[in-house]
Amino acid sequence: MTSVSEIRLVKLPEGNITPEHFGCFDASVPAVLPAGAVRLRNVCFGVNAGMRSRIGRAGAHDGNKAAATHSYAGQLGVGDVPQSDAVAQVLESTTADFKPGDWVVHIAPWRTRDVVQASKLRRVDVGAKTPPEMYLTALGHTAFTAYVGMVEVGKVGAKDSVYVSAAAGGVGSYAAQIARLRGARVIGSTGSAEKLAYLRDELKLSAAFNYKATAVAEALAEFAPEGLSLCYDNVGGEQLEAAIAAMGEHGRIVLCGMVSDYAQPDAHGPRNLHLFIKRRLCMTGFTVLEHESARADFEASMRGWLSRDEVVVRSTVFEGIDALPRAFSSLLAGATTGRAVVRLDAAA
Amino acid sequence: MTSVSEIRLVKLPEGNITPEHFGCFDASVPAVLPAGAVRLRNVCFGVNAGMRSRIGRAGAHDGNKAAATHSYAGQLGVGDVPQSDAVAQVLESTTADFKPGDWVVHIAPWRTRDVVQASKLRRVDVGAKTPPEMYLTALGHTAFTAYVGMVEVGKVGAKDSVYVSAAAGGVGSYAAQIARLRGARVIGSTGSAEKLAYLRDELKLSAAFNYKATAVAEALAEFAPEGLSLCYDNVGGEQLEAAIAAMGEHGRIVLCGMVSDYAQPDAHGPRNLHLFIKRRLCMTGFTVLEHESARADFEASMRGWLSRDEVVVRSTVFEGIDALPRAFSSLLAGATTGRAVVRLDAAA
Repeated sequence: MTSVSEIRLVKLPEGNITPEHFGCFDASVPAVLPAGAVRLRNVCFGVNAGMRSRIGRAGAHDGNKAAATHSYAGQLGVGDVPQSDAVAQVLESTTADFKPGDWVVHIAPWRTRDVVQASKLRRVDVGAKTPPEMYLTALGHTAFTAYVGMVEVGKVGAKDSVYVSAAAGGVGSYAAQIARLRGARVIGSTGSAEKLAYLRDELKLSAAFNYKATAVAEALAEFAPEGLSLCYDNVGGEQLEAAIAAMGEHGRIVLCGMVSDYAQPDAHGPRNLHLFIKRRLCMTGFTVLEHESARADFEASMRGWLSRDEVVVRSTVFEGIDALPRAFSSLLAGATTGRAVVRLDAAA
Repeated sequence: MTSVSEIRLVKLPEGNITPEHFGCFDASVPAVLPAGAVRLRNVCFGVNAGMRSRIGRAGAHDGNKAAATHSYAGQLGVGDVPQSDAVAQVLESTTADFKPGDWVVHIAPWRTRDVVQASKLRRVDVGAKTPPEMYLTALGHTAFTAYVGMVEVGKVGAKDSVYVSAAAGGVGSYAAQIARLRGARVIGSTGSAEKLAYLRDELKLSAAFNYKATAVAEALAEFAPEGLSLCYDNVGGEQLEAAIAAMGEHGRIVLCGMVSDYAQPDAHGPRNLHLFIKRRLCMTGFTVLEHESARADFEASMRGWLSRDEVVVRSTVFEGIDALPRAFSSLLAGATTGRAVVRLDAAA
């Protein structure tokens, strides 16, 4: 066996999650590779707010168990290793599909090195213009999620008046930019003055507001008096309620995440669903895993935008495997801008 | 001017609406017909729960005013005359399109006789097999609403496991039957033991329950352990929350009405919208007014079902113009089965 470092959940949170809910442990992976497996070194991890829903959520309103077991990711208990998307380099391989030095992305347990079946890996090209971290940001899981939600599910077009909540975040910043690049008018919300400036000055949205300073309903009434045609929501709860109130006729709502809900044993349910009838609204939830068929379109579009410098790529970077819990809790606290990324030491 | 009787709203309800909120008044309509108008006698009225949302609703969560003014029907104040769908017979006409004795349906203010522009009328065939009331029930507005929601919006098919709330009601009873006739498995809910027997014995649904005796979540977990693929909701609120919890992956929710919400200044918002993401659900609200293009399909399908005795047609009948308020409050209180219909005296 080979020694590695890994992050485990050490206690379940009651409310907000903090680094104290995790610990960094020595662990081991097989010293001899099984057939079809590769040994790899994780180089950088992305961190996803959605994982919060898998930790310590009582699931009071989750309903029937049969349907719950169909959910695409199970709950994490004490001792479990969280996971997220990561870029890794192959150290050793038993398959002709990969050789040492190859770069891959995968959904990776939070450990420094690992032994993984080749079928779980997707090869990527790393070069001067596309460093490893690019596969966590503009070419990564969150930007792909934004593309799927905005283009495949939301069918965004030039006539749309779009609202993106948490628009300075890892998914939201790409969702907002993709909508803008497809010609839509885009309004974004965020939770600090600094990130508000980022939305206005760097992402160049049509309008932006700090939801802690201006109520969502007020801001949207001001910025979209005619009503929104498309809402891309990452937040849920009261903010979603305010967005529903601002939808115009035949408005589409795409639900990508519900960061406001993940930690709540008793979530806030939007009280204005009657507007769905009055205004003929449609709301769709999605997960990116079902849309792999859109990846080629996404990569072609994104590489085009990147080559023309039309996309702003920003991340908040943390250093070292033991920074993963801090990156995660900072993300949930709204203290990061763009993708939250953790770089591992090459020697780890 | 010609004297008629009409129903007016005389005070706004705080909570439940009762006959005391209305009064019956003498009114008048023009004695001389304007060009393009007809004089008609309203023969029978249907009564619709949806009108509740137009009476005394503060609209606390309705959101921006611009979008609100787009709503398809305005609010009713004291002195206003409510309206609903009605079958009428032409008494006098200034247009070649209609002659005395013709039968029509229209959205009619609650009065005995009226003068109406011909463009607001739709001609119908009344005969031995299609008495006037049939255009309020199986061939009327509510059955058409059920058809549009179930077929056009819900795309019901033989593989579907369908839940219809308020399934013994004017819309629900047709929605449930249409789904069954298209091969789906149908579960219905209602609010009394008598109506439960109607769902089981007459509408022959696959399963049915009384939501006052069995919690919706429990009943659906028992009757649809694999998860629902389609929910046709007429109720909203806590019952919708329970239905959301019972949806299977890629489930579709069609919102037709929200009878639970109409009287509530502070409606119950479903707290489990995170399931939209986990299970990739879609929820759509509709109003029948936008789907006139489906009417020919609806009529052909329904006449076929009627000719083969495949549809159960039931209504709860009230007599006389002054019974309209009682019919309406009975409907809202869940005391009617099938369509709530008010027959007017021929002499009125």
